[in-house]
Amino acid sequence: MLSKIMKPKSIAVIGASTKPKTIGSELMQRLRDYKFNGKIYPVNPKGGIIEGFQAYTSIEEVPGEVDLAVIVVNAKFVLDTIDQCHKKGIKGLCIITAGFKETGAQGAEMEKELLAKVKEYGMRCVGPNCLGVLNTHPDVTMDATFAESLPARGDIGFVSQSGALGGGILNILKDLNVGFAQFISIGNQADINAETALEYWENEDDVKQILLYMESIQNPANFRKLATRISKKKPIVALKAGRSAAGASAASSHTGSLAGADKAANALLAQSGVIREYSLKNLFATAKVFSNCPIPKGDRVAIITNSGGPGIMATDAICEYGMQIAKITDTTKEKLRSFLPSAASVKNPIDMIASAPIEHYQQTLETVIADENVDMIMVIYLPFLGLKDIDVARAVMEIKAKNPSKPVIGVFMTTSSFFSELSNMQVNMPFFMYAEEAAEGLHRLNQQRLWQNRPEGKIPCYDVNKSRAQEIIAQSLEDGRAQLTTRESIDVLDAYGIRVCKSGFATNLDEAVNIANNIGYPVVMKMTSKTTSHKTDVGGVRVNIQSAQQLKDEYNDLIQKLTDKGLIDGLEGVIIQEMVKGSREMVAGIATDPQYGPMMMFGLGGVFIEVMKDVTFRIAPLTDIDAMEMIKSVKAYKLLEGARGTTPAQMEQIQETLLRLSQLVTDFPFIDELDINPLLISEKDGVGIAVDGRIKVRAEEAMQSLGLKCTCGSCSGCCH
Amino acid sequence: MLSKIMKPKSIAVIGASTKPKTIGSELMQRLRDYKFNGKIYPVNPKGGIIEGFQAYTSIEEVPGEVDLAVIVVNAKFVLDTIDQCHKKGIKGLCIITAGFKETGAQGAEMEKELLAKVKEYGMRCVGPNCLGVLNTHPDVTMDATFAESLPARGDIGFVSQSGALGGGILNILKDLNVGFAQFISIGNQADINAETALEYWENEDDVKQILLYMESIQNPANFRKLATRISKKKPIVALKAGRSAAGASAASSHTGSLAGADKAANALLAQSGVIREYSLKNLFATAKVFSNCPIPKGDRVAIITNSGGPGIMATDAICEYGMQIAKITDTTKEKLRSFLPSAASVKNPIDMIASAPIEHYQQTLETVIADENVDMIMVIYLPFLGLKDIDVARAVMEIKAKNPSKPVIGVFMTTSSFFSELSNMQVNMPFFMYAEEAAEGLHRLNQQRLWQNRPEGKIPCYDVNKSRAQEIIAQSLEDGRAQLTTRESIDVLDAYGIRVCKSGFATNLDEAVNIANNIGYPVVMKMTSKTTSHKTDVGGVRVNIQSAQQLKDEYNDLIQKLTDKGLIDGLEGVIIQEMVKGSREMVAGIATDPQYGPMMMFGLGGVFIEVMKDVTFRIAPLTDIDAMEMIKSVKAYKLLEGARGTTPAQMEQIQETLLRLSQLVTDFPFIDELDINPLLISEKDGVGIAVDGRIKVRAEEAMQSLGLKCTCGSCSGCCH
Repeated sequence: MLSKIMKPKSIAVIGASTKPKTIGSELMQRLRDYKFNGKIYPVNPKGGIIEGFQAYTSIEEVPGEVDLAVIVVNAKFVLDTIDQCHKKGIKGLCIITAGFKETGAQGAEMEKELLAKVKEYGMRCVGPNCLGVLNTHPDVTMDATFAESLPARGDIGFVSQSGALGGGILNILKDLNVGFAQFISIGNQADINAETALEYWENEDDVKQILLYMESIQNPANFRKLATRISKKKPIVALKAGRSAAGASAASSHTGSLAGADKAANALLAQSGVIREYSLKNLFATAKVFSNCPIPKGDRVAIITNSGGPGIMATDAICEYGMQIAKITDTTKEKLRSFLPSAASVKNPIDMIASAPIEHYQQTLETVIADENVDMIMVIYLPFLGLKDIDVARAVMEIKAKNPSKPVIGVFMTTSSFFSELSNMQVNMPFFMYAEEAAEGLHRLNQQRLWQNRPEGKIPCYDVNKSRAQEIIAQSLEDGRAQLTTRESIDVLDAYGIRVCKSGFATNLDEAVNIANNIGYPVVMKMTSKTTSHKTDVGGVRVNIQSAQQLKDEYNDLIQKLTDKGLIDGLEGVIIQEMVKGSREMVAGIATDPQYGPMMMFGLGGVFIEVMKDVTFRIAPLTDIDAMEMIKSVKAYKLLEGARGTTPAQMEQIQETLLRLSQLVTDFPFIDELDINPLLISEKDGVGIAVDGRIKVRAEEAMQSLGLKCTCGSCSGCCH
Repeated sequence: MLSKIMKPKSIAVIGASTKPKTIGSELMQRLRDYKFNGKIYPVNPKGGIIEGFQAYTSIEEVPGEVDLAVIVVNAKFVLDTIDQCHKKGIKGLCIITAGFKETGAQGAEMEKELLAKVKEYGMRCVGPNCLGVLNTHPDVTMDATFAESLPARGDIGFVSQSGALGGGILNILKDLNVGFAQFISIGNQADINAETALEYWENEDDVKQILLYMESIQNPANFRKLATRISKKKPIVALKAGRSAAGASAASSHTGSLAGADKAANALLAQSGVIREYSLKNLFATAKVFSNCPIPKGDRVAIITNSGGPGIMATDAICEYGMQIAKITDTTKEKLRSFLPSAASVKNPIDMIASAPIEHYQQTLETVIADENVDMIMVIYLPFLGLKDIDVARAVMEIKAKNPSKPVIGVFMTTSSFFSELSNMQVNMPFFMYAEEAAEGLHRLNQQRLWQNRPEGKIPCYDVNKSRAQEIIAQSLEDGRAQLTTRESIDVLDAYGIRVCKSGFATNLDEAVNIANNIGYPVVMKMTSKTTSHKTDVGGVRVNIQSAQQLKDEYNDLIQKLTDKGLIDGLEGVIIQEMVKGSREMVAGIATDPQYGPMMMFGLGGVFIEVMKDVTFRIAPLTDIDAMEMIKSVKAYKLLEGARGTTPAQMEQIQETLLRLSQLVTDFPFIDELDINPLLISEKDGVGIAVDGRIKVRAEEAMQSLGLKCTCGSCSGCCH
């Protein structure tokens, strides 16, 4: 797919130059110095010799076939250059030139033309406005970038959306002993984007982990599909910048106001098995760990140290990540006792004491790696008189080399010169300065293990009354309302098989009493209004009504209050509902992210929702596994389990509620916001019951989709 | 106080040695190489010359006066050595020798004798089992440690409880360009501990910040007093290890089970103005920042960068710490526009674009420092062709030197060789690799600013009915109960002026109806039992009782349920309470930490308490400022402010409730646990009302304190 670009047999550098410190010169030097395993054809109108290669005055003149054209000419010549490349039969482009979409409308127009040509000619194109591509495979050895240093060979496939940052990253990773298999600076990602790269690297054997630096995700649904599949085979680690930029959402629902773009990105990455990092530092640290460690079989960590304090700190950090401090077997303890001094502690953390010589590091590690109760190992070294840190590291790596099956991470609390020295060595395990960094690394390994073991999940399809739901929505739209009434909202939920509480709608007192008598007391009375959406704020909800008399009193009081507040006109009537007994109010909902589409929310509802923010998000549609993970990931899960003598909630029923909601928004993607708040957990049987619901649609989109026409006469088919 | 130890004019090294790689030899070398500004007397039975100094066969023989004896002899000779030091008139000891308390009972006994001698002779003593002391002041230049490298001169006073770690830290800090004024490895802290050091450094002008590595706090009350005062003058930064070791508490109250040693340490440090770090990495980073930055005047940060991506990441991090992205003035913008290229962005973050030359870094920084809307500055550099990172750093430091009044932190995303180079230079500002690290540094500066501006607060003394509270507690103890009944608990709270809800106690139905008629309906009925403490779990709480008839029904139902469950015997009666309307249930309480003493808790109560854990702790006694900070620091504060149309809570009244509780536990320090749950916020007037209370005392301690004797005959004065 991308092989013409990533594994070319010949490269033309269009805009190659002899002028020092220009990109056209740097790029040629890089190709030459990294010893590209193919033909290099510099193209420059002046011809001559560039960096030792015969230059051609035009691409036409190039004698052989060209797989990849790296274009560094001025932006205004790029479109013509693409035409010339086409004439030459070139299918792979890497356009480094800037001056397109990133500069404004005119540039964007030019980029559109560029893409049109690429499509027309059947080419693939990296960039424009990028740093280039590289492939360290011995068959290719291509460095077509202008970063500061030549890349180290390694197992990472790396996609960067930022050119400048990409260059910085290449430098730093090299310094950290982390090497690349392939690198693509996607720049403006006119054609090739992170998803293209993911898909390409899925079957590239020498790419063993994929790193992404992203500022946006172009096609979230496609990204999710690819990442979910590929992350099962190799870790995908992403840094997504721009969290705080998310800004305030103008949404009127709870789900909407708690959502926001970063929540969406977070949800998407989580359910796709992508490990999200929040800083470059952590991105690099994780890459270093995956480069040098196998995925462990479990989460039991052994700590080997020559100092107590760091052992304590390591324990703290490991426990905080929810991993286990391994229980060393008695056999291991005996073996350790046979050579460690009596002052040493053979319980985990294994404290060999400060004077531990190199031999003790080796023997202890060898013994502990063999322990069946140990899945991962942290080796801590604090400088001790007479030992050289780098010698200890070498000795530890020797043992690691003989026992490659379990992850071992070194914590060497020493000076930066140790790490400088390391960066010029071949290593077979990661080293960090601090125990907390190593613990985080182990946590990432464990996270990948858990993801790989996680079942894939299914998106179920329930038997629902879709046409009834559609009718209700259509009616609301015909009435000119994008926001459904409570009654309509509950009816839509009911049509989708969501357990709602028994209720009836009354427009006057007699009807209300009639319905209540049928349902049976106690009941709840709730106003429904076309103008007032937060009912509790205006006293529109009356609970625990025990008799017809009390119902009459409450009804009359409500009418009086609304009249006093001037809100009586919006009143449609009241809903009389069965009173579900239960103190646990959850929330389930849908919000729409402009970029990521419909998103599901679940968590603690009621009055606490906006204060505690104990909610979680996933992008729709949900798999059964996604839905159950949502339920288990909120703190309020403990409430659901039946804290303090309450009835345990029926988790599968709540899971089904989420899945049915997901089906609803999949069927009607124009649903903009939906809240079930509360989803009350019945004390009787632990079932989650939708007691209140609010649905809002994007009117124009909905009307189009349902084939409706607005009758207001004053609009272009939208709702007023 | 410690001047004989920290500023000696003469040092005897008892146990000095010529044998390489021994502590007795390393220490002598260190004193010599660091050019101790005073007399050095090695003492060794063999005499001779040690590291160029005349050795003496005994301390007696030493010709001159000796201020400090550094003792490295075998543990079994230490006590005799102290006697000899006394004969010589030595008042300062630094005992490096290990083999005391840390080895078990026998060692602890020896350490006790050691301390007795030190006290008897009027000496002060660092250690035993420590790394030594150092003072870099030019008048002293003493390195009496055996760490790996000689210390750099700086402004830190550092206390380490771990010897090995202390040595590691000295190395690393030197590598990070951070120097010491003084260092004390307190080891087993038989005599001198962190508090002694704090007090000594309070008035040592060249100690400008204090760093602590602690595994325990010896005297929390004294530590709090000293730290609160001294942290107003200079930052105190602490790393306290051993968080996860806290372990499960067996407490039966909410407050107790949510507490735990690390919460106590956290509370103590927070209310003493000590900045707590959770890793050495962060401890060092913060030290680096305080060493090179003034405390800012505000929290408005300007970001100067040559790359957009890191600018976004910096913004994310700064916002997450709650600091502000400075609004650059128009004057500044104009000035910037006058020299930056048109593609640059002069809005904060100021993006000078990738090609920014050194001059732009200088001019931009100079312009931004002068902006009155800017309190702190982050300068980001990503490698660009042709620029050398270290040159950029030098240029930036040049500007910083001319403008020392505002903190400037550099983010140089380059290789470790840059930082190695830096470590051999004199710097005047901190440099980090990543924006997140710099943001954390700015946050620490801002935190210190806020603490320094925080009023000191007062511990008020309310007029309370102490004798009534004492009577109730005494009665409970005489009845053989360490756990007060609900009624007793509420009465104690009432005696301390805490707003409790109107109530009465009834032992039969007639009494109950009588009381309810007096209070007025609706009322709440709660069982009180000597055997059942979590009432809701057994249906012992009935709310919203509207009439005498309903009260009769509920009462009879309760008796039936308890009889069915076999719990009827413990029943004392029922409390009939006014029904306070309100949906916001808070919790206020007391827990006792075995080491830190009584601790106050406040937060979200009701059924959510253990699930949401939205609570905060402070050590008693509370100041008014502490109490208000507690209220404002929980998420549920938004509920108190009056979210979603509820009545705003009376914050001062809630503050007073906490302060009165604090006074209660100060008066009766044997109160082990106390819960007010819920402290219900009345919808009527926003007052917090103690609706339910539970108090438990430590019986033996309480009986002793109140002069009571147990009458059970089967114990040694404690409760059964």
